[in-house]
Amino acid sequence: MTRFADPQRIRSLIEGLDAFTATPGRGTTRLTYSPQFRAASDYLRAQMESAGLSVREDAIGNLVGRLEGRDPGLAPLLIGSHFDSVPNGGKFDGPAGVAAGIETAFLFRDHGLTPERPIEIIAMIEEEGTRFGGGLVASRILTGELDTASLGSLPDDDGITMAQAMAAYGLDPAQAGRAVRQPGSVHAFLELHIEQGPVLEAQGEDVGIVERIVGMAQLKVTFRGQAGHAGTTPMTARCDALVGAVAALSRLPGLAYAMGRDAVLTVGKLEVRPGGANVIPDRVTFTIDIRAPAEEVVRELIGQCRAVIGQAGGNGLTAEVEEQMFVAPTPLSPELHDRLLRNAGQLGLKSRTMVSGAGHDAMILAGFAPTGLVFVPSHKGISHAPEEWTDYGQLARGIDVIFTSACELTLPAGQAPASPRPAS
Amino acid sequence: MTRFADPQRIRSLIEGLDAFTATPGRGTTRLTYSPQFRAASDYLRAQMESAGLSVREDAIGNLVGRLEGRDPGLAPLLIGSHFDSVPNGGKFDGPAGVAAGIETAFLFRDHGLTPERPIEIIAMIEEEGTRFGGGLVASRILTGELDTASLGSLPDDDGITMAQAMAAYGLDPAQAGRAVRQPGSVHAFLELHIEQGPVLEAQGEDVGIVERIVGMAQLKVTFRGQAGHAGTTPMTARCDALVGAVAALSRLPGLAYAMGRDAVLTVGKLEVRPGGANVIPDRVTFTIDIRAPAEEVVRELIGQCRAVIGQAGGNGLTAEVEEQMFVAPTPLSPELHDRLLRNAGQLGLKSRTMVSGAGHDAMILAGFAPTGLVFVPSHKGISHAPEEWTDYGQLARGIDVIFTSACELTLPAGQAPASPRPAS
Repeated sequence: MTRFADPQRIRSLIEGLDAFTATPGRGTTRLTYSPQFRAASDYLRAQMESAGLSVREDAIGNLVGRLEGRDPGLAPLLIGSHFDSVPNGGKFDGPAGVAAGIETAFLFRDHGLTPERPIEIIAMIEEEGTRFGGGLVASRILTGELDTASLGSLPDDDGITMAQAMAAYGLDPAQAGRAVRQPGSVHAFLELHIEQGPVLEAQGEDVGIVERIVGMAQLKVTFRGQAGHAGTTPMTARCDALVGAVAALSRLPGLAYAMGRDAVLTVGKLEVRPGGANVIPDRVTFTIDIRAPAEEVVRELIGQCRAVIGQAGGNGLTAEVEEQMFVAPTPLSPELHDRLLRNAGQLGLKSRTMVSGAGHDAMILAGFAPTGLVFVPSHKGISHAPEEWTDYGQLARGIDVIFTSACELTLPAGQAPASPRPAS
Repeated sequence: MTRFADPQRIRSLIEGLDAFTATPGRGTTRLTYSPQFRAASDYLRAQMESAGLSVREDAIGNLVGRLEGRDPGLAPLLIGSHFDSVPNGGKFDGPAGVAAGIETAFLFRDHGLTPERPIEIIAMIEEEGTRFGGGLVASRILTGELDTASLGSLPDDDGITMAQAMAAYGLDPAQAGRAVRQPGSVHAFLELHIEQGPVLEAQGEDVGIVERIVGMAQLKVTFRGQAGHAGTTPMTARCDALVGAVAALSRLPGLAYAMGRDAVLTVGKLEVRPGGANVIPDRVTFTIDIRAPAEEVVRELIGQCRAVIGQAGGNGLTAEVEEQMFVAPTPLSPELHDRLLRNAGQLGLKSRTMVSGAGHDAMILAGFAPTGLVFVPSHKGISHAPEEWTDYGQLARGIDVIFTSACELTLPAGQAPASPRPAS
């Protein structure tokens, strides 16, 4: 079925990249600007160079490999994804899209194709927000949505700011603004990503062409009480921050259930201080991740969370809610959606139109340039876990959709290759 | 009111010791075998030496200052407490009792007293269990209750075992057994400790003489589920370890309320893995600390906790309960209780007999040698927090009870000093 992309070459790239994890044997943990991240960047640079690209690291650490166009002045077609990870995640979330870009470059080289407009393959930083919070940092900076002056106030869990980490990585935070792209300077953005859900596999489909991305919000909640000795403070005299937090936490998932309309709510990060087994907690912080296809559902859930948390405070406990991220549902380019869907059909692939439940860099870039997003199946829908898996043949089929569409977007009509292998 | 102990000397010792914290400005954090612990030990050694004691570090890092007796072969009177702390705790929990021992030595020197039997002032390690779990480690090793061969299997949160940390501290783990004391080798143990509760202050009393210590248990609970992406996993398809843990946590404090009988239950330590804001948790671990004056109440609460946790599992979630500590309620020496109470009265102090809600090294030593425990008031009952406070005059009054009792236990009848200040 695959006509162009090479599953073995893709596999080699993805498994090679996966060597750079802070948790070998326990999944992929590659935090932005970590030693593993630097090694991964060096590895990708070598791969891009062997695909014939001219490679540069931009001012915030994105790696950009450029296939020059016949007219270097034309706005480039951008193809790629991110290469950071969640803690103990999988090797496909992000890297599959980076591999799609690099494999596309290999295919242009294999077929001896020179695009009219440049093609830039991009491997981006900090999409997950694992290290500095919020997420989608590269795309928010590229598009000017996130002011680079704020990088000094984005701390990681050890209190190291993003600006400090950049400096340690070998970048100059004062120059971060040079990563911002000008409006109109990107012709289009294509991203391939694993679905991270069960639909494609369950339906026996090869690719999902995304028409929109759910709206999402991230809240940070802090409960504060009074520390004290676990043995000498009567139950009735306590002001236990964890008891308050649990009163709220026990009601949160029910809000999403009751809401329906494909809403999901997750508490993924929670810290209890001071953290001694025989000390009554005086501070509990946790995150709430809220997503739904409809904006009003996300807003309604934020309000319900605030109400539940407010009710859990009192009796000396204080509760504070901080909205760390809000992104409205995002429509992608209808023109690119139709083009990707048509090319999937011409490749003989089974496809469907989808709403994405996950945020991706495509979500941010969609407000900046025409953007298309292709999903490939995730085994059992598992993601953000070491068991995350996509068959390399399936991944190659998704990349064929990216490649054939990239040909249409950069080559004169009729010049796209029709045969699976180049005449050598 | 104070007749012997010097509040200024006590204050100087306690505040000097408090310089050795890993969290300056945010309370006392002094983990066993940490750099701060070593510095604190060196400081205490100097204090003990200036009180005229011969100082040695035993095989597990307890600091022992000996005032030689006229008959060195007699079993010594042991006086002291611990000098490790909880995270971000106070400066009195432990050090008050070490100060009581050292001040007693100063008073013997001031008054020119030489005891018949030796007096050993001891500053002990790892009472809180903050670093290696379980707690009361020094007293459990001294009394032979904890096999020193097990130290290699007590890891801290970074996976460093107690044996490894000992080696880094400059001790030989293979020699740890030399810290064990022989049965009959300790004449009696006296400990002073802050109450860590509100009773003495609320009643306007100077000292509490403890007759027994509550029974206590510590459980470690682990919920395991399936990690997944927060955006693409429908609510109905989740196996969220935190949702399961919260279902249990929301019911735990109510068990102690419903039980009454002075039972208390605390969850002080809780970890969520993998810990990404957009990742469904696959593992949650937490501790449960249970205490009550009656053993059957502790046992009943353990059973109820196991039932609640079992009910919160299922649907792909597993829940595991590990009993990390169980200590039955502990009677202290009735003879020493009566002696301490009588001496408090002769000093003109207001006193009461108490049950201790906190475990102390006295709890373990009570099974090994006649043991007495004196409480002094804690301001507002706050402990295990930076606000922990005991007035130095109050502390001196408690130390007077220790000193006068130590005189009775080590000097021939009639030789104890009657006047507050020595003839110089």
